[in-house]
This record gives sequence, C-alpha cells and structure tokens, in this order.
Amino acid sequence: MNFKLVFRITGKTLLVEAGAMLLPLAVGFLYGEDPAPFLYTLPLLVLVGAIFSVLKSDDHFFPREGFFAVALTWLLVAAFGALPFYFSGYFETYIDCFFEAVSGFTTTGASILTAVEPLPKGILFWRSFMHWLGGMGVLVLTIALLPNLGGRTLQLMKAESPGPIVSKLVPKASQSSKILYSIYCGMTVIEIIVLHLVGMPWFDSIVNSFAIAGTGGFSIRNTSIAAYGSPAIEIACTIFMLLFSINFALYFLVLCGKVKQALRSDELRFFLIVVVGSTALIAIDIWPMYSGADAIRHAAFQVSSIISTTGFASTNFDLWPEFSRFLLILLMFIGACAGSTGGAIKCSRLLLLLRSIRREVRQVIHPREVNVVKLDGQVVDEGNLRSVHIFIGAYMLIMLLAVLLVSLDDFSMVTNFSAVASCIGNVGPGLEGVGPMSSYAAYSGFSKLVLSMCMIIGRLELLPVMVLFSANAWKRS
Amino acid sequence: MNFKLVFRITGKTLLVEAGAMLLPLAVGFLYGEDPAPFLYTLPLLVLVGAIFSVLKSDDHFFPREGFFAVALTWLLVAAFGALPFYFSGYFETYIDCFFEAVSGFTTTGASILTAVEPLPKGILFWRSFMHWLGGMGVLVLTIALLPNLGGRTLQLMKAESPGPIVSKLVPKASQSSKILYSIYCGMTVIEIIVLHLVGMPWFDSIVNSFAIAGTGGFSIRNTSIAAYGSPAIEIACTIFMLLFSINFALYFLVLCGKVKQALRSDELRFFLIVVVGSTALIAIDIWPMYSGADAIRHAAFQVSSIISTTGFASTNFDLWPEFSRFLLILLMFIGACAGSTGGAIKCSRLLLLLRSIRREVRQVIHPREVNVVKLDGQVVDEGNLRSVHIFIGAYMLIMLLAVLLVSLDDFSMVTNFSAVASCIGNVGPGLEGVGPMSSYAAYSGFSKLVLSMCMIIGRLELLPVMVLFSANAWKRS
Repeated sequence: MNFKLVFRITGKTLLVEAGAMLLPLAVGFLYGEDPAPFLYTLPLLVLVGAIFSVLKSDDHFFPREGFFAVALTWLLVAAFGALPFYFSGYFETYIDCFFEAVSGFTTTGASILTAVEPLPKGILFWRSFMHWLGGMGVLVLTIALLPNLGGRTLQLMKAESPGPIVSKLVPKASQSSKILYSIYCGMTVIEIIVLHLVGMPWFDSIVNSFAIAGTGGFSIRNTSIAAYGSPAIEIACTIFMLLFSINFALYFLVLCGKVKQALRSDELRFFLIVVVGSTALIAIDIWPMYSGADAIRHAAFQVSSIISTTGFASTNFDLWPEFSRFLLILLMFIGACAGSTGGAIKCSRLLLLLRSIRREVRQVIHPREVNVVKLDGQVVDEGNLRSVHIFIGAYMLIMLLAVLLVSLDDFSMVTNFSAVASCIGNVGPGLEGVGPMSSYAAYSGFSKLVLSMCMIIGRLELLPVMVLFSANAWKRS
Repeated sequence: MNFKLVFRITGKTLLVEAGAMLLPLAVGFLYGEDPAPFLYTLPLLVLVGAIFSVLKSDDHFFPREGFFAVALTWLLVAAFGALPFYFSGYFETYIDCFFEAVSGFTTTGASILTAVEPLPKGILFWRSFMHWLGGMGVLVLTIALLPNLGGRTLQLMKAESPGPIVSKLVPKASQSSKILYSIYCGMTVIEIIVLHLVGMPWFDSIVNSFAIAGTGGFSIRNTSIAAYGSPAIEIACTIFMLLFSINFALYFLVLCGKVKQALRSDELRFFLIVVVGSTALIAIDIWPMYSGADAIRHAAFQVSSIISTTGFASTNFDLWPEFSRFLLILLMFIGACAGSTGGAIKCSRLLLLLRSIRREVRQVIHPREVNVVKLDGQVVDEGNLRSVHIFIGAYMLIMLLAVLLVSLDDFSMVTNFSAVASCIGNVGPGLEGVGPMSSYAAYSGFSKLVLSMCMIIGRLELLPVMVLFSANAWKRS
C-alpha cells in the first residue's frame, strides 16, 4: 500500500474541507453569531491537511489505493467536520458530533438532536452544507478543484461514486467531475429559487436545497418539512427529491441533446415504475386517514423522500398502517438510481438481480439457450453481475449483523431494524423509536458508532470500507 | 413440457402418500377413534393417483420437467394431505387445513391450531408423520419405493434435495435414495427409543421423533416441549435436533469408515461454530432471567431448535431481550446444513457467500492474483457460485415481498416479519403474534396462502416453484 500517496490525497481533501468551512463561518458572521466553533477547528484542519499534502511519494496507484484513500478520507473528513458541532456546545459528547457529521456527509440525515431550532444559523448551515458536499462526493469535489491530485483520479471516482457501473462522461476524470459539479450546482441554484418562490424564507430555501440536492434530509425545523404546513412547498420538494435521485449522466445526455437516449434508460424506467406504483398503493392504504388529495400528496412526498434516501417528512408516517410502513422499509432498501446523490442498493442493482433471477429460471427451462443479462440494450459483463450479486448479499449481511449489535441497547426490534436499514441506506429516519418525529439520541455511544459505520459503508458502497479493514491491505507492497 | 410424464410422477407419489396414510388410520383404529377422516380421503387419493399413474408418455425428461414435477407434486400432496384434517372437523376452513398440511410436509411446523391437545391421536399422528415424510422428501421416498419412475430420477432428487450442490452417494439415484432413507429410519428409531428412555410416553416419543427427524416442530402439546418440564427430555431433543441438521452424506461417510473426511467438512465446522457461538451469546444475555445452568440449557435448546429449523420451544423465547430475539431471527435465515432435513438458506450457501465477499476484497487488493472460492478443499465452479449468490438475493426478495403482502392484515411488523422469515425458512414459530406460545390462526385466508407458498418455496429452494409459475415452462415443446 502506497500510504504516503493515500495520505496526500486525504490531506488535499481536508484542505478543501477547510475551504468549505469558510462558508458557514461567513453565515455565522452575517447573523452576528460566535465564530469560535469554526475558528477553533480551522487551524487544526489546515495544519493536518497541509502536513498530509506535502508528503512525497511515488505514483504507484492501484485500485486498492483508491478504495483505501476514499475510506480513510471519509472517516477523517467526518471526524474534523464534527469539531464545530463539538465546540458549539450544543452536543453532549464527541461521539454525538461524529454521528451527526457522518450522517451529514453520507447524506443520511439521521440526527441525534431532539430539537434543532435553537442551534445557531452557522452550525445549521454547516450541517446541511455537509449533505451538499457529500452528495456528489468529497473526493470528486477535490478532483474537480485540484486536478493534479497524483495517481489515477478515475480510480478515486470509481471508488466513491455510487452504482454498479461508473459512466465516464468524458475521457478525463477531472473533466468529468467538473461537469458533474456544474450540473449539480446549476440544479441546486434552480431549486433554491423555486423553494423561495413557493414560500420558503431565503435561509430555509438554501439549507433545504442543500439537503435535497445531496438527498440528505437534515431539517432545520423540529418537524421537518411538515413544519411549513404548505402543500406547495411539499410538492416542490417532492419534485426535486425525485430529480436528484436520477443518474446525473442522464442530465449530461439531455444537455448534449440526446433526450431520447436518456429516456430509454432501463434504470430510470424501473425507478419511475417503483415510485408511481408505491405512491398509488400507499395513497389507497392511507386514504381513510386523510381527505382525498392529501393522501396522494403525502404518499408521493414520503415515497420520494424515502426512495431518494432524503428522509424528509411531510407527516408522521410512523402512524400509517403496517402495509404502508413496510413498503417504506422496502423503499429504504431499493434507493435511488446509480450515479445520483441518493443511496441504498440502487435501482440498477436490483434490476440486474431481477434479470439474473429470470435468467436462472430460463436456463432451467431452456438449458441449451445462451442467456445473457442486458441493461440499456448492452450485455452486462459477468464480472460486473457477480459484483452486483455479492454486493446485495453483503449489504443484507452487514445490515443484519448491525441490527444484532444495536439490539444490545434493548430498544424495540422495529426501532433497531429500521434504524440500521435507514442508516446503511443513507435515508435518515426510521420507525418507532427513530421515527420521523424522533431522533437517534437515545442510542448508546457504541450503537451510534455502529450506525455511523453503517452510514459510511452504505455511502461508499461497502468495498472501500472492507478494503480499509482488511489486514491484507495494510501490508506494504 | 412433457406434462404426461410429470403427472405420472405426481400420480405415483400420491399413491405412496395413500400408502403412508394407512399408518395414521391404524393408529386411530388402535385408539378406537372415528376412521372417517381417512376413509373419506383414501379413495379420492387412490383414484387421482391411479389415473395420473397410468398416463402413457415418452421418456423426454429435462431439468425443467424435474423442477415442474417436484413443485406440482408438493402442491398436490399437501392439498390431499389436508383432507383428513378437513374431514376431522377440528379445522375451520379448508385453507386452514391446507396451511397445516403444507406446514407439515415442508417441515415448518407453523400451526393454525390454538390448542392441539383435544385432537384425535390419528390426526395428531398424521400431522407429525407429514414432517417425517417431507423431511427427506416425498419424491425421494417415491424413488426409493418405486425405482422405475421413468425419466431421470437424479433430476428429481436434485430438484427436491436441499443445498447448493447435491452429493451423489452412489452412482444410481434410486440406490442413493434407499441409503438415505435407511440412515433416516435408523436414526429415527434410535431417537424414539432415547426419548422414551428419558421419560416420554411411547406415543409422544414417536410423534416427537417424527417432528425432530424432519426438523418440523409440530407439537402434540399446547406449550411444545416445555410441557414435559423435563431437562433430560430437552437435552435429548437438543442433541437430536442438531444431529438431523447435519448433511446425511456425512453419516454415509461415517458408515463407510471415513470419519476423518466427514469431520473435515467446512460446512459442519461453520455450523458448529454458529451453534456454539450463538448459544454462548444468548446464555450470557438471558443469564439474569434464569438460574445458571437453565440459561445454558434454554439457550442451547432454542438455538438448536431454530437453526435446525425445527421450531420447538422449551420456554417462551419471545420474552427474551432484544439481542437474543434478533439473534434467533438471524438463525432463522441461516438454517441447517445442506443435505439435511433442515431448511432456510443453509450454512454452505452462507459460507460460500462469505468466501465470495472475501475474494471480492482480495481482488481489489491483489488484482493480478487468481482467486478461487473453495469448499472442502475443492474449487467451487463459478456457475454454482452464481446460483448461490442469486439464491440468497432471491430468498431475501421473496421474503420482503411476502412480508409486504401479509402486512395487509395490519398485525405488528415484528409479527409479520418473523412469520414470513419463519415460514420461508421452514422453522415454525416467530415472535409476538406468532410467538412460540401463539398460533397463525389470526391471519386472513389470503395471508395463510401467502405463508403456505413461502413454506413450499423455502422447502423446495425457490427454483421449482419459479419454474412452475413461469409462463415459459407451460409451453409444449
């Protein structure tokens, strides 16, 4: 393992994080708040970042270095990102701050805060800004800003980007990441304006846009989006949550004028079918609880919020009937499209699993037929397919083991199960004890660390973290 | 599809079932009970079986015919096996009887009876005898008794036998099935004697032995094995539940004098590690609830009962702490060894998934190394591995969808989740509403059918049922 190069990459990303932290500092300054939480953190962050950045190394860079660097970077970015929370004095322990920061960067949105409204604006801004930074990837941002990162930047993008198959927009990775961030910024700006037009104050529309763009879901109101009590805001949020769940490569296609090709995406179709189908089923199920159109609006909002892995709430869905509650749990597993800011297993992986199952049955019925699995008309390589199958198996395995560990706190099984499913899927809220109107505060420090690991494992899609924890990877080559 | 041959195979198996029904008829006669339930059923069963058996067909027999025949046979064997329950008058609807019969043959042991003790001995005997018949496989029995079944009997054994890789004991399938049934009968007889020696009445020791040998778990007491209140009985049951969870091919090796080879089995070691580890963890967790040795005994009994997918209870484990309750849920997924009478995913599949994950990580770290997955020192074929991965994915998918369907009854999520996990794993009891001291009676007819399908899907390991429901399979070739 080329540790020096790995640390150099991590160091540069920490410097980018320091740069990002100037924004919440400025916001706090604007509102006349105490700048101490950020002023204490920044020198530390810059110092460590600078020391790592100047490490000299050769350019030996293989996939393992990429995965390792990504996992390490995310851990450290969250660890430092937690410091302003810690210095603000609004959090009880550093573990709470770390949990909140991991939840922010991984775009989960699970909070240990029982009341967010008393927090200073600068801290609230930082908390939501983390979603925006983590949504497209902190390393992708670093690559976009500092192209001469050393090593093969595509490896890093591959290791950080969500989805089974990474679509290179253009041959150069640093160019690709710039295009991605440009689309991302553009859509975020449009969102901020739209949310303000439908009635949100500017500050709220900015931080909520960060949360939606990154499909994070930290709210600055105790009762999430329900606090605004505005159907127009809920509808606007629904639309943007869905937009940010779609593979950004499709937007690039649209920008290049290839609209038809974008609409032919198998994954997009699968995603839309699931969204429309689930919304219809839930609307029917909760119909007796709401008057007509409200049932459809809440169903659409909640389905979009969960499948996009944002985690906002327009109502307390924990009170819905079992059918709707469990359907939401299923959506937590499915998640958004690959190449979006959303998390969980991803529609394309599920689609590939379904097609693999169909092939398995076909092969019994017609043993002499040659069967391949296709996506968007292209044959999917067997190696990729295998990775998809193993990913899904490993995802369920890690989830079940995490539930077992968290069970030591002796909360209800639904609380534990939904908490882990929500954290590993980067959704945010769960059911019962961690329902949309509750928080993760009650869990023990140990459970909070387990859940933090779940969030990172989910966001980085298992492999980087597994490489980090593999004894083999630590050997010098 | 060669329907005539498929029906001929099913017909012969129905005739074997008719033969098996003479035993409970005799038992009822011995206890001076009304023979009507069996006397009404037998002519019907013989008639349908005979009509199917005399169908003339060519010998075209491919894997799909095998899978199709197995799925159809199991459905019909359960449908007819339910008739004595129906005619007995102790069950409310035919669906209840079908559920109970499916639960019997699939060795699940989930019951819709809230009180079993009032039932006639003949009916109780039939109910438990189903476990014994289904444990080793109704078609394997038919092959053993009627070797000239037509077609390739190995296909049928493959389609019915549990586990990713079928071990042929000897070259001829009919010979293999005779050996398997001989070992099975021998072990059952020993068990009956042992259970009687530790204090069970003869009738109880016979039916409980059927339930344990088939890893079924129907009890003839309302409070399961706890009713005997005897530590000696519980310990004896624990040992036999474990013995029947082990691959029968290993017993064959032992009989051939190859004891060392049997003990080197990777799956056996994995199974024993899980059993010992879970027992220790649960014993520590429930220590404060029981006095010393009782905690270990209950932990060992319940771990063996669930991982063997028997489902007996020595105490109400639904009252245990969350950690132990969820660990039991995990064991429901893991299940017994391949080639045993136990159900669920099976230890060997899980072991292969774990090794595949390890290979995936290794391949990132050492991309140029050739990595293979081994079991018992042998390289596992990539096609077999793929089937294992897809099996696990499909298993989870079907389970989650079934939970969603069952949620329509609006029972608690833990009830629904554990009910489906228990049924598809052929365990029996779940938690809360379907806990060890409750029954499945409260579910609607629709849910009972969904759960019945889960039991059959689990027992036949997905593929046969998927082939049966594939439109492609129904086309004449």
